[in-house]
Amino acid sequence: MNLPQRVRIVDVGPRDGLQNEKKLVSTDTKVELIARLGAAGLKAIEATSFVSPRWVPQMGDNSEVMARIVRLPGVDYPVLTPNLKGFEAALAAGAKEVAVFGAASESFSQKNINCSIAESLDRFVPVVEAAKAAGIRVRGYVSCVLGCPYEGEIAPEAVASVAATLYAMGCYEVSLGDTIGVGTPGKTRRMLDVVARQVPMDKLAGHYHDTYGQALANIYASLQAGVATFDSSIAGLGGCPYAAGASGNVATEDVVFMLNGLGIDTGIDLDALVDTALWISEQLGRPCGSKVSLARRGCKG
Amino acid sequence: MNLPQRVRIVDVGPRDGLQNEKKLVSTDTKVELIARLGAAGLKAIEATSFVSPRWVPQMGDNSEVMARIVRLPGVDYPVLTPNLKGFEAALAAGAKEVAVFGAASESFSQKNINCSIAESLDRFVPVVEAAKAAGIRVRGYVSCVLGCPYEGEIAPEAVASVAATLYAMGCYEVSLGDTIGVGTPGKTRRMLDVVARQVPMDKLAGHYHDTYGQALANIYASLQAGVATFDSSIAGLGGCPYAAGASGNVATEDVVFMLNGLGIDTGIDLDALVDTALWISEQLGRPCGSKVSLARRGCKG
Repeated sequence: MNLPQRVRIVDVGPRDGLQNEKKLVSTDTKVELIARLGAAGLKAIEATSFVSPRWVPQMGDNSEVMARIVRLPGVDYPVLTPNLKGFEAALAAGAKEVAVFGAASESFSQKNINCSIAESLDRFVPVVEAAKAAGIRVRGYVSCVLGCPYEGEIAPEAVASVAATLYAMGCYEVSLGDTIGVGTPGKTRRMLDVVARQVPMDKLAGHYHDTYGQALANIYASLQAGVATFDSSIAGLGGCPYAAGASGNVATEDVVFMLNGLGIDTGIDLDALVDTALWISEQLGRPCGSKVSLARRGCKG
Repeated sequence: MNLPQRVRIVDVGPRDGLQNEKKLVSTDTKVELIARLGAAGLKAIEATSFVSPRWVPQMGDNSEVMARIVRLPGVDYPVLTPNLKGFEAALAAGAKEVAVFGAASESFSQKNINCSIAESLDRFVPVVEAAKAAGIRVRGYVSCVLGCPYEGEIAPEAVASVAATLYAMGCYEVSLGDTIGVGTPGKTRRMLDVVARQVPMDKLAGHYHDTYGQALANIYASLQAGVATFDSSIAGLGGCPYAAGASGNVATEDVVFMLNGLGIDTGIDLDALVDTALWISEQLGRPCGSKVSLARRGCKG
C-alpha cells in the first residue's frame, strides 16, 4: 500500500472553526492563533472570510485580520470569498489566495447560499477570472460530498460534476467536504475514485468532519487513494450546526498524530500544535475537541 | 479491497468500561446495562471480572451480576479471570466463557500484574486446562500491542509470541489490545501481519483504545487485513488511566456506524445502542464518549 510521502494540511480553524462561535472572538486572539499555527509549521492557514458581516458577524474584522497577520515565508493564508464583492474586498485587504464554495447537493445549495448549484458556479466565474487577472490563486470547495442534511446520500457523480466545473474554471485544487460527517471509508474511497476521473487525484483535498468520529478513517482511506492534502481545524474548532453539542471539523492534532505514525511528513511540530490547541480552547472557554491534545494534557498531569 | 462481510463485536463496557469508575455502580445498573446491550443485538458482552475485590472493588459484585443477568440465546457473557482462584469463582457463578490477559511488554506486565510475561502465561495454563475440563471457552487478551506506557514502541514479534502461546494453550481467540491508544493504521496492519504468521487472522480480535482518536482508522486497517472481531465499549466507557481526562475504549456506536457504512453486518441495532449509551452516561453522570451518540442526540434537539 503506497501512501503519499508528504501531506499538506490546510488549517481552517481561524475561519471555519471560529465562524460559528456566538461570542465575538477578538482580533488579537485571531491574529495570535494564526501566528501560532504558522510557527507550528502549518503551510496553509485559512485566515478569514469576506462574506457579509450581516451573515457572519464573527468575520466582520476580516480586513483588520489580514492587515495584522505577520506572513511567514512559504505559508498561504487563503480567505473565503462568496462573490465578486467579497473578492474585491479580499484583494484590497491583501489576500494572495481566495476560496469559493459550491455544494454537491441542490437542497443544501438552496438553503445554505440561497441559489442553485448552477447559479453558484456561474457566480464564481467572474471571481476566478478577476483572481487570475490579479495573479491570485483560487481554491474550490464542494460541500456535502458524502451526504446532505436534507437529501441524505449524494451520488459521487454529482460531486464529480461540481468538482470538475470548479477545476475547469481555474481552481488550483478542489477540497471535498463531508459537511455533516456521515461518510465512512468505503464510500469515501468510491467517491474519490469517481471524482478522480474528472479531476486529478493530486488536485483534490479531503475536508472531512468528525461529527460521527469517522474523519481519520476517511483520511486513511483517502491516503490509500492517493490524496495528499487535507483540511482540519486546530483543537477541532467548529461544531456541527446540524447537531447541537456534536463536533464538526476534525482536529489538526489528531490528523498529524496519525500521519506521524504513518511516517508521512507534514512539516508540523505536534507539540507546538497541542500547545496552540489547549491555548485557543482556553481562550474560547470550551473543552478542547482533540483527543490527542486531551491525552497529551492528561499525561502532563 | 475485500472486507469481511460480517463482524462480531465484543462489548467490554460492563467490565473494562466500568472497572475504573471510582463511585460504585449498582448491581441493578450493571444488570440493566447488560440486558440493554443484549437487546440491542450484541452477541458478546463482557459481564464482569473475577479479580480480587481488593484490586478492583467495582467488580466486587461479580457473582451477583452473573446470577442476575438474563441470558439471551446465542449471546456470550465472558468474564475476566486472572488465575485459578478467579476461574473457580467464575465457574461457581455460572460463567460459560472466561478470559485471561497477558501483556506484550515486560515492564507493563511487571507493573500491571506484578509478574513477568512468562510467569503470567504459566499461570494461565491451569486456568485453561480447568476450563477445557469444564467445557468452558477461554479468550486471551494481549495488552500493549502497539505501544507501552513504560517502554514505548513494542516489536510486533513480541506480540506474536504472546499471542501464539495463548492460542497454543487453547484460547479460541486472541484479542490484541492497544492499551494506550497510540497505534496508527500502518503499524496496526504490520503488527497484524506479523501476528497472523503464528495465529490465524480469523482467530484474532482488535481491541483498540481511542485515546488519540485513532481507533476507527486502526479498525479499518484491521478489516483490510481480514480481522472480523473487535472489542469496544458502549458510550466509550472506560477512560485512559495513563492520561487524566482522556478517553480509553472506542465507543461501540462509533464502530457500528462505520461498519454499517461499509455494508458490514453486525446484527446490532444502532438506535438501541445510542439509547443505551445515552442512558448509561446519564446513570454515571458523565458525558457520553461516543461522537455518534452525541450527534444523534443533538439531531433530536
